Amino acid sequence: MDLPATIAGRTAIVAGNGLLPVAVAESLRKQGGNPLIVAIKGEAEPELYKGEHAEISIVELGGLVKILKAEGISNVVLAGGIRHRPEFGAALRPGNGNLVALYRFMRAFRLGDDGLLRAVIATIESYGFRVLGAHEIVPDILAPAPGTITRKGADKESIADMRAARKAAIMIGSLDIGQAAIAVGRRVVALEGVEGTDAMLQRVAELRLAKRINRKGGVLVKCAKPQQEVRADLPAIGVSTVENAVKAGLKGIAVEAGRTLILGYEETVTAANKAGLFIETFEQEAP
Amino acid sequence: MDLPATIAGRTAIVAGNGLLPVAVAESLRKQGGNPLIVAIKGEAEPELYKGEHAEISIVELGGLVKILKAEGISNVVLAGGIRHRPEFGAALRPGNGNLVALYRFMRAFRLGDDGLLRAVIATIESYGFRVLGAHEIVPDILAPAPGTITRKGADKESIADMRAARKAAIMIGSLDIGQAAIAVGRRVVALEGVEGTDAMLQRVAELRLAKRINRKGGVLVKCAKPQQEVRADLPAIGVSTVENAVKAGLKGIAVEAGRTLILGYEETVTAANKAGLFIETFEQEAP
Repeated sequence: MDLPATIAGRTAIVAGNGLLPVAVAESLRKQGGNPLIVAIKGEAEPELYKGEHAEISIVELGGLVKILKAEGISNVVLAGGIRHRPEFGAALRPGNGNLVALYRFMRAFRLGDDGLLRAVIATIESYGFRVLGAHEIVPDILAPAPGTITRKGADKESIADMRAARKAAIMIGSLDIGQAAIAVGRRVVALEGVEGTDAMLQRVAELRLAKRINRKGGVLVKCAKPQQEVRADLPAIGVSTVENAVKAGLKGIAVEAGRTLILGYEETVTAANKAGLFIETFEQEAP
Repeated sequence: MDLPATIAGRTAIVAGNGLLPVAVAESLRKQGGNPLIVAIKGEAEPELYKGEHAEISIVELGGLVKILKAEGISNVVLAGGIRHRPEFGAALRPGNGNLVALYRFMRAFRLGDDGLLRAVIATIESYGFRVLGAHEIVPDILAPAPGTITRKGADKESIADMRAARKAAIMIGSLDIGQAAIAVGRRVVALEGVEGTDAMLQRVAELRLAKRINRKGGVLVKCAKPQQEVRADLPAIGVSTVENAVKAGLKGIAVEAGRTLILGYEETVTAANKAGLFIETFEQEAP
């Protein structure tokens, strides 16, 4: 794949946890690019420290801008999650940043993920950098057009579970709480909060063991928030999602087409096929 | 307290788990009544088996009606939760019940807690029994009029957390998913599904230990579903809620006045005061 003409100049990957930053870095390197990794301390995968990299703490927005300027960066990709949420009051270090921007950043943090990400993007852009979504660099990680991407598809019961879980996932997304829900027997049994999707799946596995959920089957639904900033924090699934869905006794996973990332597409579909799980993608929510 | 004139005749308590059935039984005995305990197998507290009692499995609605008739029952109270949800397809035993009623019951089960409870109540009433809410027998267990019931009240930050968690709790209640939510730093961090409030509080305690939540404080909100059937499944708090809220590092608990049960009111308030936790009650949601 050629580097799209629109992504000219050097790109920095601000790397949170998970495999998305790794995939973005690999993709840029394959395209002949020389990305700078800006690893978020305590979050980024160790292998990202192997290439050219800098490290920042989540509270050092000023430090980030300084690094981007020094390295002659044109584009910035924010990729991966933040597992350890900062207590700004205690740990804020202004670094060399613009204090007004930092103040806005701090205020935005109180608005939750979504407000925070929008403010971070706006702040980075205010310094003249271009902020790209990970899917603009690795377009084939986006969940494809509505349909079944595994050998098995959803049965009638699962379609009903999908509907129930999707309704709940959109609702909690609209409040910027989470992006995922699980329904079993048409009943929503778990909603994603700060714990994340894998922990929620483990909870459902435990609830089954404790016979608190006795109906069989069930579906995990992940979808973007209605107000989603698509350049950051798109919901994602991968091999670990499939493995945990199997442990939770689910029949399948359904994700929003075009606004969900499938990390390690081939491996994920292979793992699902091996386990007899379905993965469906459904139409995007009208904005 | 005198037995209200409207609660004439013998009362049966269909007892799920938790302390509510115990409180209802005690209250009826203090009022001079001789309640029949119908313990749900695997759910009811062991001490309920000490007095006059029968035991049924959750799938034996037919058996329940037979017992109520044989014992000359006039009133029925459904009290306590059901932790172990039945798989009706596998375990249904029609007993001596009306098969049409059971069929409706089974269909209703697919509608979730709320639909199920309405159907159970309608079925019991169709046999001529009167179904009462636990709070009609023990009125002083209902959360009192809006205000602070502990020494400490909610500070400004906690009021903001209360607002955020309440909005989320009402939302998931409207979908019949759960009745509780926790917000920390104005951000909803956990939503109640099948796991229940205590397990949700334990999750938040773990997320703090793992530094996935770093802001201090936070509030648990419990409120009835907008469409709540008030004769069953009212949200409840008690001493264990206070203990788990303390472990989760919360500053307080807020519940809906008049539609939340406080089990062991004195002990609960004492435990909260001892721990420096606040308990607030807020106005009922307009129906």
